[in-house]
Amino acid sequence: MDFEEKTIARQEMFKGHIFTVAVDDVELPNNLGQAKRELVFHKGAVSILTVTPDKKIVLVKQYRKAIEKISYEIPAGKLEVGENGSEKEAALRELEEETGYTGDLELIHEFYTAIGFCNEKIKLYLARNLRKVENPRPQDDDEVLELFELTYEECMDLVRSGAIEDAKTIIALQYFALHLRDA
Amino acid sequence: MDFEEKTIARQEMFKGHIFTVAVDDVELPNNLGQAKRELVFHKGAVSILTVTPDKKIVLVKQYRKAIEKISYEIPAGKLEVGENGSEKEAALRELEEETGYTGDLELIHEFYTAIGFCNEKIKLYLARNLRKVENPRPQDDDEVLELFELTYEECMDLVRSGAIEDAKTIIALQYFALHLRDA
Repeated sequence: MDFEEKTIARQEMFKGHIFTVAVDDVELPNNLGQAKRELVFHKGAVSILTVTPDKKIVLVKQYRKAIEKISYEIPAGKLEVGENGSEKEAALRELEEETGYTGDLELIHEFYTAIGFCNEKIKLYLARNLRKVENPRPQDDDEVLELFELTYEECMDLVRSGAIEDAKTIIALQYFALHLRDA
Repeated sequence: MDFEEKTIARQEMFKGHIFTVAVDDVELPNNLGQAKRELVFHKGAVSILTVTPDKKIVLVKQYRKAIEKISYEIPAGKLEVGENGSEKEAALRELEEETGYTGDLELIHEFYTAIGFCNEKIKLYLARNLRKVENPRPQDDDEVLELFELTYEECMDLVRSGAIEDAKTIIALQYFALHLRDA
């Protein structure tokens, strides 16, 4: 059984600063004919499960326009052009910009967020041994953020209330429960 | 501190069958001025952590055009128009179409997959007490799928090898490890 779908033609439908959109005509494997695939291409992102010495988790409160709601999430940020080779530096930059912390980073997961139509890949780091940066890089000027340092149980209250509904944050909290809570 | 970003103008950039794309001009809170937001609107999806009586996990192998790779994932499918009120039936339909099973469903998580730019929300169900359907609904005719029933450890081998890099599947596997592995 073959699986690969070969591109016959690609039409670019939208070219933005954050993502581009294309529609591909593909040749299905096993003589199944043709189909169309609507695709979103994104440069990828980094996110950081940030754990303080007293085992609190750093969360960022922010407004998310796509869902028209306030959301609590682990710190994260898009990769900039040319940053693909140094995701760890990108993660350190986002950590500093969003929280004022630096720390020791360890890659714990990487995943495609919406694999059915989008190639956005998020690298999830664990940050420990946190130190406050004296003059941290400022936050992006179009972001309004509020910081929280919460226990795992307080984070799970936010999951139960619906204030945390973000996939990367849920992955990070599950990782904490599996590997760090009782460590 | 205010968080909400009010839409001043919305321009639709792409209208597809799977998602639409818009660019919003937004008024930032706290007199920070204006910004642009590139947005993907999606109807949402369901996915199913499917666990057999001998604690194996049902995975689907398929080609994902957005990443040009073969991927192993828990069964999942998009919501169709008008299905928003009955996600559980949609999950049962996808389970039957992709695996030939029906079962007892329980909602275990719901999350936005790519909250920074996209409103796709996935409801994740746990399916247990599986029964084979005698004449199951056929798979979609543009999908080529292969089924696997794997132990948790075999699934984690696929995570380590990079064959599982899908956020919803990682959430499902971590849920299994937290709540079902030793139950």
